[in-house]
Amino acid sequence: MNTGYTIRVITAQHGGKEDLVTFLLCVSYVILSLPLSPSLPGAAGVNGNGPTKLVDPLEDPVPGVGTYEDFNTIDWVREKSKDRDRHREITSKSRQSTVALLHSVSDAFSGWLLMLLVGLMSGALAGGIDISAHWLTDMKEGVCLNGFWFNHEHCCWTSNETTFQERDRCPQWKSWAELITGATEGPFAYIVNYLMYIVWALLFSFLAVTLVRAFAPYACGSGIPEIKTILSGFIIRGYLGKWTLIIKTITLVLAVSSGLSLGKEGPLVHVACCCANILCHLFTKYRKNEAKRREVLSAAAAVGVSVAFGAPIGGVLFSLEEVSYYFPLKTLWRSFFAALVAAFTLRSINPFGNSRLVLFYVEFHAPWHLLELAPFILLGIFGGLWGALFIRANIAWCRRRKSTRLGHYPIIEVLVVAGFTALLSYPNSYTRMSGAELISELFNDCSLLDSSQLCGYQQVSCVCPSNISETGVGNTLADRPAGPGLYTALWQLALALVFKMMITVVTFGMKVPSGLFIPSMAVGAIAGRLLGVGMEQLAYYNHDWIIFKGWCSPGADCITPGLYAMVGAAACLGGVTRMTVSLVVIMFELTGGLEYIVPLMAATMTSKWVADAFGREGIYEAHIRLNGYPFLEPKEEFEHNSLAVDVMRPRRADPALAVLTQEGMTVGEVESLVESTHYSGFPVVVSQESQRLVGFVLRRDLLISIDNARQRQEGVVSASQVVFTEHAPSQAPDAPPPLRLRGILDLSPFTVTDHTPMDITVDIFRKLGLRQCLVTHNGRLLGIITKKDILKHMAQIANRDPDSILFN
Amino acid sequence: MNTGYTIRVITAQHGGKEDLVTFLLCVSYVILSLPLSPSLPGAAGVNGNGPTKLVDPLEDPVPGVGTYEDFNTIDWVREKSKDRDRHREITSKSRQSTVALLHSVSDAFSGWLLMLLVGLMSGALAGGIDISAHWLTDMKEGVCLNGFWFNHEHCCWTSNETTFQERDRCPQWKSWAELITGATEGPFAYIVNYLMYIVWALLFSFLAVTLVRAFAPYACGSGIPEIKTILSGFIIRGYLGKWTLIIKTITLVLAVSSGLSLGKEGPLVHVACCCANILCHLFTKYRKNEAKRREVLSAAAAVGVSVAFGAPIGGVLFSLEEVSYYFPLKTLWRSFFAALVAAFTLRSINPFGNSRLVLFYVEFHAPWHLLELAPFILLGIFGGLWGALFIRANIAWCRRRKSTRLGHYPIIEVLVVAGFTALLSYPNSYTRMSGAELISELFNDCSLLDSSQLCGYQQVSCVCPSNISETGVGNTLADRPAGPGLYTALWQLALALVFKMMITVVTFGMKVPSGLFIPSMAVGAIAGRLLGVGMEQLAYYNHDWIIFKGWCSPGADCITPGLYAMVGAAACLGGVTRMTVSLVVIMFELTGGLEYIVPLMAATMTSKWVADAFGREGIYEAHIRLNGYPFLEPKEEFEHNSLAVDVMRPRRADPALAVLTQEGMTVGEVESLVESTHYSGFPVVVSQESQRLVGFVLRRDLLISIDNARQRQEGVVSASQVVFTEHAPSQAPDAPPPLRLRGILDLSPFTVTDHTPMDITVDIFRKLGLRQCLVTHNGRLLGIITKKDILKHMAQIANRDPDSILFN
Repeated sequence: MNTGYTIRVITAQHGGKEDLVTFLLCVSYVILSLPLSPSLPGAAGVNGNGPTKLVDPLEDPVPGVGTYEDFNTIDWVREKSKDRDRHREITSKSRQSTVALLHSVSDAFSGWLLMLLVGLMSGALAGGIDISAHWLTDMKEGVCLNGFWFNHEHCCWTSNETTFQERDRCPQWKSWAELITGATEGPFAYIVNYLMYIVWALLFSFLAVTLVRAFAPYACGSGIPEIKTILSGFIIRGYLGKWTLIIKTITLVLAVSSGLSLGKEGPLVHVACCCANILCHLFTKYRKNEAKRREVLSAAAAVGVSVAFGAPIGGVLFSLEEVSYYFPLKTLWRSFFAALVAAFTLRSINPFGNSRLVLFYVEFHAPWHLLELAPFILLGIFGGLWGALFIRANIAWCRRRKSTRLGHYPIIEVLVVAGFTALLSYPNSYTRMSGAELISELFNDCSLLDSSQLCGYQQVSCVCPSNISETGVGNTLADRPAGPGLYTALWQLALALVFKMMITVVTFGMKVPSGLFIPSMAVGAIAGRLLGVGMEQLAYYNHDWIIFKGWCSPGADCITPGLYAMVGAAACLGGVTRMTVSLVVIMFELTGGLEYIVPLMAATMTSKWVADAFGREGIYEAHIRLNGYPFLEPKEEFEHNSLAVDVMRPRRADPALAVLTQEGMTVGEVESLVESTHYSGFPVVVSQESQRLVGFVLRRDLLISIDNARQRQEGVVSASQVVFTEHAPSQAPDAPPPLRLRGILDLSPFTVTDHTPMDITVDIFRKLGLRQCLVTHNGRLLGIITKKDILKHMAQIANRDPDSILFN
Repeated sequence: MNTGYTIRVITAQHGGKEDLVTFLLCVSYVILSLPLSPSLPGAAGVNGNGPTKLVDPLEDPVPGVGTYEDFNTIDWVREKSKDRDRHREITSKSRQSTVALLHSVSDAFSGWLLMLLVGLMSGALAGGIDISAHWLTDMKEGVCLNGFWFNHEHCCWTSNETTFQERDRCPQWKSWAELITGATEGPFAYIVNYLMYIVWALLFSFLAVTLVRAFAPYACGSGIPEIKTILSGFIIRGYLGKWTLIIKTITLVLAVSSGLSLGKEGPLVHVACCCANILCHLFTKYRKNEAKRREVLSAAAAVGVSVAFGAPIGGVLFSLEEVSYYFPLKTLWRSFFAALVAAFTLRSINPFGNSRLVLFYVEFHAPWHLLELAPFILLGIFGGLWGALFIRANIAWCRRRKSTRLGHYPIIEVLVVAGFTALLSYPNSYTRMSGAELISELFNDCSLLDSSQLCGYQQVSCVCPSNISETGVGNTLADRPAGPGLYTALWQLALALVFKMMITVVTFGMKVPSGLFIPSMAVGAIAGRLLGVGMEQLAYYNHDWIIFKGWCSPGADCITPGLYAMVGAAACLGGVTRMTVSLVVIMFELTGGLEYIVPLMAATMTSKWVADAFGREGIYEAHIRLNGYPFLEPKEEFEHNSLAVDVMRPRRADPALAVLTQEGMTVGEVESLVESTHYSGFPVVVSQESQRLVGFVLRRDLLISIDNARQRQEGVVSASQVVFTEHAPSQAPDAPPPLRLRGILDLSPFTVTDHTPMDITVDIFRKLGLRQCLVTHNGRLLGIITKKDILKHMAQIANRDPDSILFN
């Protein structure tokens, strides 16, 4: 039945077989029909200002006013207000004609349609990535004679129907040694396979890093730090564009297949956000409004996690907890819808061939005992320590890469790390297999039939005295003493743990797409499994100890090492990312039993507390700070007791604030003031003497409007008066006509008094999404606070370099 | 084994047997050791101002400053700022000594400890309520000879171990007719049982309404509208107090047992919030801060739903989506913890005797087909229509109760409705059973052995041609033609539907504790089951129709009426409450399969859209509005394009704004100004001429401070100058000493300009939780906007009576 991917996609189980094909065609059409801009990274970027032909001259009289420059922060209040104006207009028009009514209805439902498309497209892409990565990973070990496009499993699918183990060695599938030399066994074949493994790893990683550097530099890394920053209101053009999507999808497959210690889960969030951003261009509502678009991106982040783990609820909570900044309830509901659509699309593609939704399906048979909370908390401590250590080491390494010559040779760096990884991981079967496979195996509960090394227990004829008759079926899963297979496995796992811990530090942050979820979980799962087996053996040999008495009698299945692996994985992931609820819910969706939530919660809580003791930042926040993005952490409280007057500019020694007056300044004066400063906006006051505030005007809007007026409006010269008042003042009859700019004046700038505590000011900035705020004293304008000022102030308090905040 | 409740509680399955008893003792101790205030309703209310002995004279120089009056709104910004100050102080002290460090650590963990206690106490109370309600409900039908404190199930537990049906008729359990007359069968026995049923219903409902009226008037209703309002920052003293808790717990049991059409799920949220509020008194951090306390109450709302449905994740989302106002991420995590603790406490009490966590455990065997979405959406439409209709009818009825003489006789009203309900519901077995039992039966999938009427299908020898060999086990559950039993059941269900729809309208809002979840779900479940059976029969008799072809061949189990009931229940509950994500997640937690999320989502979405078309408000918002509480809906957008100047006071024709000057006014002048107005605060300006704003002072603080100064400070007379400046102005040497009040002046009042659009102003109020905001024009003070002004303005826009907003 399953003879290839194409056929497999088409013979998807749950309805919509033809729909899927149609949909994929549509998506390709949509992507290809978008206008290609000449410079690649800027192609279909975040910026709301589309191609000029889209601008309606009546709607937006001066093109460019109200848009943003690259690497700048948006004004949430203005964007949301713009959207409400638009909505009001549509609603009021809808009462006039049927066409307008239909337009209003279609406008209301466009959000849902967009969510549907995002879900379908992300689900389809995730399916494609899974299938391709699986194929390329197997390619490193051998090739299928029936056709090189089959992976190992599919190649052997049709050959024989016997046990799972024998199916691995079907005649159609040739290892490279077999194909090249004909030898299947022996040291020579091993060396050939080893070499081929390294060669493929180098090739894949070389391709990945070259593609990223050549076409889409933004495609590297996990993308989550940047998406967090973008969602908080920053603009990075091209970061979610078409080329980033295409290149990231391709290079993600290559990077995962090259065997580097990285996962595809984080980058899937980036891929989903790219899909959402591109699909936003289909709807004016979202294309033209930066705030509305960010609502869609928040939902897309949920979609990304939903397809990565098959956990829609966990995905929504991840978006809410970890990446989103502005997450209204409407978005919650839509995210959930999109996450479900994506999960079901992925399941109908069925990339794992088991029609399961989740990445690691686990079923445990035994409940856990209250006393086991002690080792679970121990795992939490380990996870917290590892998380804190990892963040420090990784940031130190990344800083080194930025500041030394190492950063100039990214291709060589990737090749060296990939070669080194391949060299060291091939001999150890637990590092040779992919991260996801490893975790899956570690989570697994051993049954009697299981032939994996990890289940290499001694087959004892039950030494237990009386319980045998009681336990019935249970005793086939009873705790048994470890055999030689298990001891070997434990050694290999311990080596794998050390190796993974080291190599992940240097891998995360290289110029290839790289996620952290899988490597972190792998570290935790190994540690957890080791502890779990240790506990099991301890209980087996010492079942008369007081702590084991009563619940761990011989012949009972009392300790499940797989559960320990799961708890360890959650603890390590929690330590690195500082996720809490979303992490527990994702893990809950993997097992499906509320039963195991308590151990997961205990470990996650401990891990967060321990890691927080060494530094409050998770890995994503640390990377945001490393890159100097202006990100105002919504979770952390501002603890210092400074006042607005301590943070605002101008400082005491500085020259006075550059202000415009509402009348009396000429165009020439305004231009020279603007050019002599670098501020992005200027307060407008009644007069220089009174300093009573009228409004605020943005530098960009001011320059565009003056340029526009000089070109189009007759008689505007440098001597023309600039007027911000409602009625033009009387002036000499021979004077040039005034330039009236009230239209670009923001008449409702935010103000705080100089005595406002900074904690309240920071709260206002966060909750309203401000860019700047004016400071007054007894009704007079005194200064200005921008987001950058706040971030610099916070950096100073934390004894960091305030100049590390690069952007506005 | 199971010989009584006490023993049952103690022999709980999952660990912590002794802990639970200890804990219950502790809880009783805590409740009893709280200071009893003389007037009952105000006992342990929401107010932060505890008994005077708690006030530290150094910490809080003028007692009462910074507290709130009853039926007033808190200032979130001030409360949060106060908490940050407190936290800063503890942190800075913690560096000085070990004791202070320990204090700091215990302060940090007090939140978690509080959550643990809330979870344990709510879980224990919920278990108690479940057990008592079960017992009293059975009491209406008969009594156990072994001891009247056994319910029917327990009474027959030990007697015989045969089938479930026979266990119902064990000799120890006597119906009232049997006990009184000795007759078990026949019309006479029926009439005696009928009468006893009505008598008990009347007795229970009489007790419930009398207790509520006598001891805790706030214990009536579901409590969710008031909790929403309290969480948004309103103060209703005593609403979450000790007496409310005790009386609500008792009367809830009575009301549920009386057979009225109400549920215990909504009131459980109120009970959990009472627990949280009472436990807050143990921790200074929460006792003294209204904002921090509301964080705990948000978590308690999650706990309430968690124990009501056994759905911790759904509970957290319910709190987030439906009731909470300010829900920081820290609260999300803590709510989840508390919800889990409560769920596991409830499970260890095991009130349903099946060690299941969820209220309705469902397991479906067949998947659903894409075409079934049509009937599911139909159910959504029904749910939406019913929701909209119910809200209108219920509000009209409640308004009538408020405005006519009906409201003067609450006891008679309850007795009439209870008597009427009992009279009509006894003859129909589907209305006689409790709402939860009915829903449980309707959700159930029929197996071959099922003897309930709803499963009264004809036992056909399979007419199917070939599928029999393929389907194997499946065909024992195959669709079958309806038999006479099923037809009777359908008739009874149709009658029950009409009855439930009518009686719920008059029941909700009476002066007894009453929840809406169960009655709404019951209506939906009946409608869904009817449609489901209809579809099943349609498919059975017309399996060659084009729409059934291919997926509903004879002998296949293609339509699950239980699933339809579930979808219908979700749709009706969604229509009434307008919950979305949380509803779907709660339902998902009942079934545990992601499979059935899509039908639930389709129905919930449709239901919300349909209901919203008739009015945007859910039942809780409608009741908030009916009561005139000042609640600023966080979900709805402000659509009108008015400006701040249109909403602020004073209006154009009104006299100028009452302001204080920062110096130059005497105590007498200030007092006469305060007494001649009713405003709750006054702006302080530099001078009457300049109108430049300095700060804002609250009426309550001003009065308390002046009173205090007159009593304690020497020389303060009516002629003394009131000074708000930092340095006292020079004055004549014979003048009385000035009264310096800068300490109570809020130096950072919020201001907006007169041109600020109201949508932005409303956003600021919502996000920052303001009480008032000053309006300026070009730096001069112009007016003030309070929350009440905004709500009145919104009411005016919506063509409602602006005077319906009663409180500030």
